[in-house]
Amino acid sequence: MKRKAGQDIRIRFGVAVRKRRSELGISQEELAARADLHRTYIADIERGTRNVSLINIEKIAKALTLRIGDLVNSYGVDPKI
Amino acid sequence: MKRKAGQDIRIRFGVAVRKRRSELGISQEELAARADLHRTYIADIERGTRNVSLINIEKIAKALTLRIGDLVNSYGVDPKI
Repeated sequence: MKRKAGQDIRIRFGVAVRKRRSELGISQEELAARADLHRTYIADIERGTRNVSLINIEKIAKALTLRIGDLVNSYGVDPKI
Repeated sequence: MKRKAGQDIRIRFGVAVRKRRSELGISQEELAARADLHRTYIADIERGTRNVSLINIEKIAKALTLRIGDLVNSYGVDPKI
């Protein structure tokens, strides 16, 4: 499956969130609780259907114990150059 | 003026966009044209009043000839650790 380059940023962001959440071994419910967001919203994000905005991007990165730049750089949100 | 740490991410993002735009020596109009966004929307972003979402973050980073991670890392969107 082709990934990253050219793919919708909502998808790339969702993949990054899921990947990091799996690394931490936490559920969508747990991530939602840590980020003070709803579980279904986290599920939508991971499915790539949400155009997440700055405030929630920051909440999610914090809940994933990452700076935004690390989430973006290390988990494939930015397309490969 | 206190900056970055603890400051609203909309403000930090706006500061980053303005700083990079100034480096490139382009106007808000030119950035708007490159990003296919409205000039007043760019002005609002730079003022820190917009909760910009993924699709427009990507458009703006591209128009600033940066990856999102570089804009976030190198221009103060992430708080200092």
